[in-house]
Amino acid sequence: MTAISAVKAALAAQAIETPSWAYGNSGTRFKVFAQPGVPRSPQEKLEDAAQVHRHTGVAPTVALHIPWDRTDDYAALARFAEDHGVRLGAINANVFQEDDYRLGSVCNPDPAVRRKALDHLLECVDIMDATGSRDLKLWFADGTNYPGQDDIRARQDRLAEALEAVRARLGEDQRMLLEYKFFEPAFYTTDVPDWGTAYAHCLRLGPQAQVVVDTGHHAPGTNIEFIVALLLREGKLGGFDFNSRFYADDDLMVGAADPFQLFRIMYEVVAGGGYGPQVAFMLDQCHNIEPKIPAIIRSVMNVQEATAKALLVDREALAKAQADGDVLGSNAVLMDAFNTDVRPLLAEVREEMGLDADPVAAYHRSGWGERIAESRRGGRQAGWGA
Amino acid sequence: MTAISAVKAALAAQAIETPSWAYGNSGTRFKVFAQPGVPRSPQEKLEDAAQVHRHTGVAPTVALHIPWDRTDDYAALARFAEDHGVRLGAINANVFQEDDYRLGSVCNPDPAVRRKALDHLLECVDIMDATGSRDLKLWFADGTNYPGQDDIRARQDRLAEALEAVRARLGEDQRMLLEYKFFEPAFYTTDVPDWGTAYAHCLRLGPQAQVVVDTGHHAPGTNIEFIVALLLREGKLGGFDFNSRFYADDDLMVGAADPFQLFRIMYEVVAGGGYGPQVAFMLDQCHNIEPKIPAIIRSVMNVQEATAKALLVDREALAKAQADGDVLGSNAVLMDAFNTDVRPLLAEVREEMGLDADPVAAYHRSGWGERIAESRRGGRQAGWGA
Amino acid sequence: MTAISAVKAALAAQAIETPSWAYGNSGTRFKVFAQPGVPRSPQEKLEDAAQVHRHTGVAPTVALHIPWDRTDDYAALARFAEDHGVRLGAINANVFQEDDYRLGSVCNPDPAVRRKALDHLLECVDIMDATGSRDLKLWFADGTNYPGQDDIRARQDRLAEALEAVRARLGEDQRMLLEYKFFEPAFYTTDVPDWGTAYAHCLRLGPQAQVVVDTGHHAPGTNIEFIVALLLREGKLGGFDFNSRFYADDDLMVGAADPFQLFRIMYEVVAGGGYGPQVAFMLDQCHNIEPKIPAIIRSVMNVQEATAKALLVDREALAKAQADGDVLGSNAVLMDAFNTDVRPLLAEVREEMGLDADPVAAYHRSGWGERIAESRRGGRQAGWGA
Amino acid sequence: MTAISAVKAALAAQAIETPSWAYGNSGTRFKVFAQPGVPRSPQEKLEDAAQVHRHTGVAPTVALHIPWDRTDDYAALARFAEDHGVRLGAINANVFQEDDYRLGSVCNPDPAVRRKALDHLLECVDIMDATGSRDLKLWFADGTNYPGQDDIRARQDRLAEALEAVRARLGEDQRMLLEYKFFEPAFYTTDVPDWGTAYAHCLRLGPQAQVVVDTGHHAPGTNIEFIVALLLREGKLGGFDFNSRFYADDDLMVGAADPFQLFRIMYEVVAGGGYGPQVAFMLDQCHNIEPKIPAIIRSVMNVQEATAKALLVDREALAKAQADGDVLGSNAVLMDAFNTDVRPLLAEVREEMGLDADPVAAYHRSGWGERIAESRRGGRQAGWGA
Repeated sequence: MTAISAVKAALAAQAIETPSWAYGNSGTRFKVFAQPGVPRSPQEKLEDAAQVHRHTGVAPTVALHIPWDRTDDYAALARFAEDHGVRLGAINANVFQEDDYRLGSVCNPDPAVRRKALDHLLECVDIMDATGSRDLKLWFADGTNYPGQDDIRARQDRLAEALEAVRARLGEDQRMLLEYKFFEPAFYTTDVPDWGTAYAHCLRLGPQAQVVVDTGHHAPGTNIEFIVALLLREGKLGGFDFNSRFYADDDLMVGAADPFQLFRIMYEVVAGGGYGPQVAFMLDQCHNIEPKIPAIIRSVMNVQEATAKALLVDREALAKAQADGDVLGSNAVLMDAFNTDVRPLLAEVREEMGLDADPVAAYHRSGWGERIAESRRGGRQAGWGA
Repeated sequence: MTAISAVKAALAAQAIETPSWAYGNSGTRFKVFAQPGVPRSPQEKLEDAAQVHRHTGVAPTVALHIPWDRTDDYAALARFAEDHGVRLGAINANVFQEDDYRLGSVCNPDPAVRRKALDHLLECVDIMDATGSRDLKLWFADGTNYPGQDDIRARQDRLAEALEAVRARLGEDQRMLLEYKFFEPAFYTTDVPDWGTAYAHCLRLGPQAQVVVDTGHHAPGTNIEFIVALLLREGKLGGFDFNSRFYADDDLMVGAADPFQLFRIMYEVVAGGGYGPQVAFMLDQCHNIEPKIPAIIRSVMNVQEATAKALLVDREALAKAQADGDVLGSNAVLMDAFNTDVRPLLAEVREEMGLDADPVAAYHRSGWGERIAESRRGGRQAGWGA
Repeated sequence: MTAISAVKAALAAQAIETPSWAYGNSGTRFKVFAQPGVPRSPQEKLEDAAQVHRHTGVAPTVALHIPWDRTDDYAALARFAEDHGVRLGAINANVFQEDDYRLGSVCNPDPAVRRKALDHLLECVDIMDATGSRDLKLWFADGTNYPGQDDIRARQDRLAEALEAVRARLGEDQRMLLEYKFFEPAFYTTDVPDWGTAYAHCLRLGPQAQVVVDTGHHAPGTNIEFIVALLLREGKLGGFDFNSRFYADDDLMVGAADPFQLFRIMYEVVAGGGYGPQVAFMLDQCHNIEPKIPAIIRSVMNVQEATAKALLVDREALAKAQADGDVLGSNAVLMDAFNTDVRPLLAEVREEMGLDADPVAAYHRSGWGERIAESRRGGRQAGWGA
Repeated sequence: MTAISAVKAALAAQAIETPSWAYGNSGTRFKVFAQPGVPRSPQEKLEDAAQVHRHTGVAPTVALHIPWDRTDDYAALARFAEDHGVRLGAINANVFQEDDYRLGSVCNPDPAVRRKALDHLLECVDIMDATGSRDLKLWFADGTNYPGQDDIRARQDRLAEALEAVRARLGEDQRMLLEYKFFEPAFYTTDVPDWGTAYAHCLRLGPQAQVVVDTGHHAPGTNIEFIVALLLREGKLGGFDFNSRFYADDDLMVGAADPFQLFRIMYEVVAGGGYGPQVAFMLDQCHNIEPKIPAIIRSVMNVQEATAKALLVDREALAKAQADGDVLGSNAVLMDAFNTDVRPLLAEVREEMGLDADPVAAYHRSGWGERIAESRRGGRQAGWGA
């Protein structure tokens, strides 16, 4: 196989999970702008996700968010997905949207609230059993707003206890992915604010616990690809929540704010042996003002473009320049890949997969957007609170 | 009058405006936690604000947010306020919570939306006429989320046009206060992102247009007291929206995150001749998880403490040390004031005003919180969307 | 002329000024790493700069830094430059490297120091008369390290006084460019910390005073292209100091940290009518660990690539998508230009200018680096303190 | 013992190590301002440090920096210190100031440079044996400036190898303290950029390896007290390098920029059981523009004041309010301690220790500053490069 055909094969085999909630309405604390055609049920979200996969060929799974995607029969939902050409992916636990969680969930000072939150996490593992999902994604909104509000260390103890209980419940082929976030919605302390905290907990929990990197969850200026390289070195990178940010957790389309950073991240994934099923590539975005399905298609394409560039890096030349201490030469090798226009290559990949070379155009031609705007009238549109 | 009695007189004469919306529910994009006793009408907000003034003596006015505080008869609302011992303050225009404003209000590419937004601004001046308010506070959520989404410069032209139309409508004793904000809810460009942009517009608009500084609206590391000093030097500081932040626009209680910064800001106000009615001292906070009325009382007290310390700076000694180039000496003069415990002094001021020395304790003793939790059942609690 | 030939003509006409100091040694506060072949005189710096221009064709002028480039006969230095195929560019005043400037230069509390600093600024205008330079670039290291150390406002008054004295001394074809910087070397206040401060001063000074944007001098997250658009709208953008930063004022090669940002900046320049001689495109970089001449060549090429992409934006399609409120469509138009590989186009431009398509390779083939490493032994290498 | 006498005893027993290099000249990359009386030898630095201890009573040890404090006979230097009433403290290795370290020290791609750097680290342990020092402080300037410059992961492997070699050399009562730093002098990657990286290495190295927290080495907005609490929970907090920052690693006097943050940090130390000899309290500051000895005295006092407030927190009331979920109440308990003026209490502590109540005034009265300005003429003043 030639080098370029290996790159093409790797690109064709990529799997980017889209999140059910990105098909629903979202917004800021100031306003949620409703959009026409937005799904009113988990099934309609899956229909939309199936469109993304239909046109890109690399978005075969869909992450669920519980309770937003709660249903009576998860096995039936999994079959529904498969009937539409996709599969259910990670289960995302939500322990932040009930009044009881005002002061936290598993870190709450009130043991009754902690118990309730843990029960929800365990229920999510039940759901995984039913859906066949491998990954439980855990993001905790827990934290405090004011100095002194709660005991930082006691909250860590409570967190560790809950995580251990979840781990004990996991099946042997299941994993728990622990997400960290710099801030929001808590504004003074966050109980898992950085990769170090997530790593320390996952280390204690053992091999089924892995860290998930959300690209929007870091302090200003943080070098994310460095963290990726470290976690891979430690065997603790479980996956990504991809999105873009200019300021905080903006949740814009991945690749929209800093495509060079996305490329550098994908390069570390590739170079560190993380380009495979053990690292889950997931989107976690909010399309507050733009149409959701084409935005997700575009996001998938942005990840593909960054991946293609990462795969095209001349690693032999790079290693040589690095060993020589050739600062400009090694940088030039990396930039050469980044500056390459990989869109023609990806068009070829798509055509070889039997897809249209331009997924966005194909989607627009399909008339899906108009169709759902027409057919999905009435009912209650899905959103973060739905 | 002795020096200390001058300080006490200045403290007794302070006026800190509380915002009607801080008495209602608020939250993040993840969750709004409802609280018992939250007002269901502008009148009930005024009742709560009156409690703050009753116990602190320095919160005589209440800012309104339109349409959140829309009512049929603003003159009647003003009388209601006066009957409860407070007055109506600044009118805050809200042009960000209708679906039409998805791509902006006065900067929207669609002229019909711009017209609608401008009509609302002009309506706010009508309301000012009815309420007798001096200040129109303008914060625009306008901006873009993606590079290329709109023309940065064209949006400035649209903004300038709307601002000029508002200015032309102002009565001669009325002012417009233009607020800037670093980001949120827009995540790529914000149309008034910094003091420089607000200043440039206000300069063109003339003396009735002034800049308002929200202490949570800056880039990380920004020296806010420097901006305060500059705006005072330029005669363009119209007021403050006080709150605290650790990360972004966290809207925590003022003085909670960095009391030393608040002191430095108040020192520049005092030193720059800004301690008087021409600079409006307003709170703009969200009490997402803590009880609202005592949080606002505490916030007012925090501003008082910072002000007291600022007034206590030995300015003569400071000027001498500065002129001598005595770095440690001048810093020590400032720190000496900051390190002073001014709570006994403020207790005296309150007692001389006929108030309880401890406003929080007095509030709790009053039973108001329990009373409203009991009486305000049913109905629709006020919140940002109400 | 076809569209593409217009782009090529614009690229061939570009002029990027290189800074004499970038050819000398530089470093951090921790260490300056000396490099072989580094110039020992202004003349040798000009020789190196001539190499950059020889291979790129778009670096015709060289900025001087006084006193680092002090010489007895500036007219002779100008002739030396011309004999080597380049010209002298902006004069950069340096009022930060003498012990007298410990507490500032033109903002120093000591009037004698202020006078000394002003004398240096006026001397720089004398030098401009001799060199025929148009622009005086003013960056002040002035500021304070500790709260209370000096009076923020008094320092502004002193600054304004010095700037006015410089302005009065300018010839009618001369300009003063005022640079702002977020922080460093001062760590509490900086006397010109942001574009707003520079703008306010330049506004008072009149049309000969313009703001210069150093791309490394902003708070984290600042949207630089927004500032560029605003300054162009106000007629106050005098030029750029280009470089890259990940964290603070890192002074890396322009385009190395965020090539997408550089493209967006250049797009605003082009769209705002700033692509012409009235806006000076200058580099201001430190090549601490990489060879300096090829690093500067690469930097010039990075600016060219960003410019080429900016010129290739389909502005008609963009304007239409923006007017339609088509968020994804307008972003796609911009990204389409950014994703284009413009290196073949620039290779063509170079060949049409009689240059090698690959300036870095041509430089390496020339043997210049080896030659100066050999010939420039002994003597005192130029550096920031030289 | 009453509560207050326990606080006083704890304050009297505090030990804050001052750094030898803070007595020498320092500056930024732009300029080092020399000061009169600056030491010219390790002995003179120790004399100055002895003055700080003489007036504060809580600065009994002095950290050395090798090679800045290189001497022929370290045992003699230790005796010199003891003769002056102080002792030698931590040994700080310096592997960043030779030309060989241009691309790093223990992470350099060149094995010969790595060997050289490691030899220096091992030499530092030899010095510890001679001085009786317990702690080896390791800060590495290692990193890269450009994407692609070197292999992030390979550099971690090299780092791990060197650290293991150092650990193997330690005596059983010796420790290695690994410092992390966000950026500077490297501007793209830093090989130990955050606490997570330092923690992961120290975990592998075992109990003799501990993390040291420099309060100026974090990303903007980082919650340092959270890190302190976590490291204490993990048994991995070895010590502090105290200083203040507004922007980057400004190295200002501790407590000068954000005294409330310093208090919160000290509170976590006290609450987490870290107030004892196992956690080294060290200063690491640069007094670029202010007189050094009084600045260090002031810094020591600032740490004392923060410690006093931390010790005064009513932990029982705090725990109760936290358990009750009383957000405002628990914050008020903390703020009550912070708002206390502890200067009278510390004056008492000093007088009970036989010291002047006001160490700065006592130092100035002593005439030491004038004496060294007179006597230390000629010779080469110590600085970072000396």
